[in-house]
Amino acid sequence: MTYTVITGASSGIGYEAAIAFAARGKNLILVARREGKLEELKADIQAKYDVDVIVKPEDLTVSERVHGLYEDLKQYELETLVNNAGFGNFDPVAEQDLNKIQKMIRLNVEALTVLSTLFARDYENKEGTQLLNISSAGGYNIVGGAVTYCSTKFFVSAFTEGLAQELQGKGAEMKAKVLAPAATETEFMKRSLDVEDIEYEGNVKQYHTAKEMAQFLLELYDSSKVVGIVDGETYEFHLKDPLYPYVQRSFSE
Amino acid sequence: MTYTVITGASSGIGYEAAIAFAARGKNLILVARREGKLEELKADIQAKYDVDVIVKPEDLTVSERVHGLYEDLKQYELETLVNNAGFGNFDPVAEQDLNKIQKMIRLNVEALTVLSTLFARDYENKEGTQLLNISSAGGYNIVGGAVTYCSTKFFVSAFTEGLAQELQGKGAEMKAKVLAPAATETEFMKRSLDVEDIEYEGNVKQYHTAKEMAQFLLELYDSSKVVGIVDGETYEFHLKDPLYPYVQRSFSE
Repeated sequence: MTYTVITGASSGIGYEAAIAFAARGKNLILVARREGKLEELKADIQAKYDVDVIVKPEDLTVSERVHGLYEDLKQYELETLVNNAGFGNFDPVAEQDLNKIQKMIRLNVEALTVLSTLFARDYENKEGTQLLNISSAGGYNIVGGAVTYCSTKFFVSAFTEGLAQELQGKGAEMKAKVLAPAATETEFMKRSLDVEDIEYEGNVKQYHTAKEMAQFLLELYDSSKVVGIVDGETYEFHLKDPLYPYVQRSFSE
Repeated sequence: MTYTVITGASSGIGYEAAIAFAARGKNLILVARREGKLEELKADIQAKYDVDVIVKPEDLTVSERVHGLYEDLKQYELETLVNNAGFGNFDPVAEQDLNKIQKMIRLNVEALTVLSTLFARDYENKEGTQLLNISSAGGYNIVGGAVTYCSTKFFVSAFTEGLAQELQGKGAEMKAKVLAPAATETEFMKRSLDVEDIEYEGNVKQYHTAKEMAQFLLELYDSSKVVGIVDGETYEFHLKDPLYPYVQRSFSE
């Protein structure tokens, strides 16, 4: 019995991805801070699908909890890890709240790196294993007013593309892939802007629903490509080979 | 009386940059873990140049010390901040030591972001102010076997290019610039590879000395360009406009 782990599963793309993987018959381990939300999702999923659902409430902005989560996951056999937990911030650099920014770096960059590394270490040679990291269109294009957030996503894109090619280069079984959504109707935008509520229709020029993005994530999961990216202009979804240049190390030691 | 702050000044590019700025008559605040090395450098500089040199021993992998350093710097008037402190790691992702990797992220990504943000907040409207962040050629090209290190430098490149354009867009006085060295003869490589010593000549195909890179840093300082990058093939130094695409935020709120 194998599991699909999804972080940030209490809302947005993570929530919809949980339902989409359950519809495929995948057993789930759902991670997020809000236990109540995870329990509701578990009940909803188990009312419709015959899958096992395990709920793990954790705050992944805290490094010790990231390691603690992975220790805890060692009792299960994993098939897929979706590093979806993350948040944004929309402020000019000079005005940004460093408390929020440091938490964002710990979550978007550090927790994703730790979980990806431990997962690759244990599962890189296991057939069918996939690591799906959620980046952003902002991980390929810097957005003014969201510079630090985009920089965390440049990290995620480079890290995941690089890992994908490293794994491929050594003939490992694990596939690493990166999803790069543009504006999506989720709680993400509220937390990024520190506002109570956003009316997407009429206010945000173009956007996908979280359900649409979860469908794109499954298209990426099914494909042999490394990058699933939403075009910021047309809002079309494209499956692509790695976008950043990649070279083998040239120095000797 | 104004100061040039250089982090990671005890060796390598930071050490040579300190001497190069002193030769321009700039007063210095030198930051690194090793107080003895900083005191030696201070004595060497003051034997040749009539500048004030202040030594601040700090470990910038610790978040509290990063904030503590900046609090301490508030008693001085700053002109230039060189975020040079940083280290690398050369291991496949699946084999990397997470203790070292998390320290690398705290230093290369988090400390640089905190110091850049606080500096921009206080000095963005002061004429002549410059922020010089040290990235890497690996912040524009992923190097297999150094994927996580390169990802931290993708962060630095995107962050600094984005900040440069944000500052320019609002007509601020501060200039933000990014230096992207390729292989350089410094202690950096030893720490990255966890080895005692490296003989560069004969072993590393092509490299610059730290003194050459410090001269490139001053060329970048004197120029109106945002990026100073070493071509990984030819080892030529180029001054360039920002390399990553940058767009103004398109969502409304």
